[in-house]
Amino acid sequence: MDVLVNAAMSADGKLSTVRREQVAISGPEDFARVDRLRAGSDAVAVGVGTVLADDPRLTVKDANLVERRREAGEPAQPARVVADSRARTPPDARVLDDDAPTYLLVSEAADPERLETLRGPGVEAVVAGEGRVDLERALAALADSGVADLMVEGGGELVFSFFEAGLVDRLSTFVGPQLIGGRDAPTLADGDGFLDRFPDLELADVDRLDGGVVLHWTVGGRPEKR
Amino acid sequence: MDVLVNAAMSADGKLSTVRREQVAISGPEDFARVDRLRAGSDAVAVGVGTVLADDPRLTVKDANLVERRREAGEPAQPARVVADSRARTPPDARVLDDDAPTYLLVSEAADPERLETLRGPGVEAVVAGEGRVDLERALAALADSGVADLMVEGGGELVFSFFEAGLVDRLSTFVGPQLIGGRDAPTLADGDGFLDRFPDLELADVDRLDGGVVLHWTVGGRPEKR
Repeated sequence: MDVLVNAAMSADGKLSTVRREQVAISGPEDFARVDRLRAGSDAVAVGVGTVLADDPRLTVKDANLVERRREAGEPAQPARVVADSRARTPPDARVLDDDAPTYLLVSEAADPERLETLRGPGVEAVVAGEGRVDLERALAALADSGVADLMVEGGGELVFSFFEAGLVDRLSTFVGPQLIGGRDAPTLADGDGFLDRFPDLELADVDRLDGGVVLHWTVGGRPEKR
Repeated sequence: MDVLVNAAMSADGKLSTVRREQVAISGPEDFARVDRLRAGSDAVAVGVGTVLADDPRLTVKDANLVERRREAGEPAQPARVVADSRARTPPDARVLDDDAPTYLLVSEAADPERLETLRGPGVEAVVAGEGRVDLERALAALADSGVADLMVEGGGELVFSFFEAGLVDRLSTFVGPQLIGGRDAPTLADGDGFLDRFPDLELADVDRLDGGVVLHWTVGGRPEKR
């Protein structure tokens, strides 16, 4: 599976404020770029923290891109994936609506009754891992369901988990023209952090847009990558 | 006073690991760039956290740059500035050595006896602010001592304080080819963070070097700037 992590961060690496309130980091050019990336993916993943904070739809917005997917014999929308170890996704979350199929990646610690309230015609649960989602196993299940290109949109906890598991092929970040600050603000990669061996990145390309810059990195040095 | 903030951060905006251990984020090209920036400054500032974690010298390393300063009638080395509200700089810190004059910016909360152990022929204390250093007043005192160009090298707490006080004119960040991660790792701008009004940046230039990229920002939208 090809895994692309894409996110917009402020010039100091923050995804939102310390209150987890969204900030308009990028603009119309980057929105269009992200829409194209989604349209080119089989599935778009976020962590449950992002669902709880932002309630995103994760769908492709541009009707032309949707039409192009249809013409190519693909589903109109990429699937949505929520990494949600304990099934905390609210039943009325937009990501569970009818616009696209959704996979909930949960662990065995997820309450089965709770999970039952989330399941629906287009919502499938993938159980992998004991207390936390085992991303590698969950991705293997997604691959079995036909997901070859996965886009990960954050938040910082999920991004770190993907890197920690050695599952990322490419990283693109829009670096925006503002400073958010805050020692407790969510960053591009949170989690426990790396201490000595750091994922090596190679800068493939740099694009200026929306008053900021998109850095396109490829990820190397991942002997553990499957 | 012209204030430039310059720092190297990982692709996810971190200055070091969660243990505050330094990471080789940049390389020889960026070291040379930073040396030139120091040589072009009247003073180079860090926060006491950086002194405690890294024990930097903050001096210009390239003998040619030092010679050029001498030829221009300037001191061989820029002054060093440590923002150190409670005078926690260790007496044997390199920043207190004889290589350059040093200003300790302290608050009235600094223990006078402690401060006395740090003072020396080349070490001057600037007292400004009650519990924390009042940067604006401290910078006014530095200006009176002839500092017209100040370079701030971090860490994240001091950088945020400078932005919070509306004292930054330019920001340059080397964004390096590695991911450090960690929700508790120091970032380019820590502190309490901004909640609604964010310092606006304008991307002046982008330079690729050392496998990463230097983003040159100018800072706008600071009605409070003196």
